Amino acid sequence: MPGNETRGARLRVVIAPGIGIGPGKAALLEGIRETGSIAAAGRRIGMSYKRAWLLVNALNGHFPEPVIEASKGGKDGGGARLTPTGEELLSAYRDMQARTDAAVAPILDRLDRLRKARRRSRKP
Amino acid sequence: MPGNETRGARLRVVIAPGIGIGPGKAALLEGIRETGSIAAAGRRIGMSYKRAWLLVNALNGHFPEPVIEASKGGKDGGGARLTPTGEELLSAYRDMQARTDAAVAPILDRLDRLRKARRRSRKP
Repeated sequence: MPGNETRGARLRVVIAPGIGIGPGKAALLEGIRETGSIAAAGRRIGMSYKRAWLLVNALNGHFPEPVIEASKGGKDGGGARLTPTGEELLSAYRDMQARTDAAVAPILDRLDRLRKARRRSRKP
Repeated sequence: MPGNETRGARLRVVIAPGIGIGPGKAALLEGIRETGSIAAAGRRIGMSYKRAWLLVNALNGHFPEPVIEASKGGKDGGGARLTPTGEELLSAYRDMQARTDAAVAPILDRLDRLRKARRRSRKP
């Protein structure tokens, strides 16, 4: 686990067997929405263009409407945008992440206290 | 993502930078509690003995009291048990997982309906 992770919950949800979304896909969708490009969105999160494309294709295959619409060509691999289905998926994930953060916060506090607790004396 | 995953949330929490617990460590702790053996707990979840030991050592190093106490030797790698700190960590994780499941359930339902929705007609 990289040391630069910040405290909190990381959520992955399985919508149906083989169909899921976690922090990586959510960040990719968010990046596509903000940059209008699969390549640029992938670069922002250190993901290869090939892997970003594979994730986009997998997502698109799992919903009756595409999640991302991409136009081919151009030096940056063409433009891309979230469809209404993609917007709904991303917004649902962000909503679930926020609910999870709120639900686990008090327990994370307790675990952090456990971690910082003074070592008990070994003497009787 | 393997196709045998069931619907629901998979939670990983970062307690502090570099210190986290997710489904794998939780299953390992649960296995140790139930089998009394790090090797047997690892086998149950398809984890090598070496990796199981590394995870146990990492966990033990992150809390002032050990999370798992192991006795060396024996053909099965010695016995192991959760300490009170380990019990608290596992119980806190299970509690967070349950709260997360409850928090995300209605949204997962919505996403599953989105996935099953009839493809909209392309005609005007």
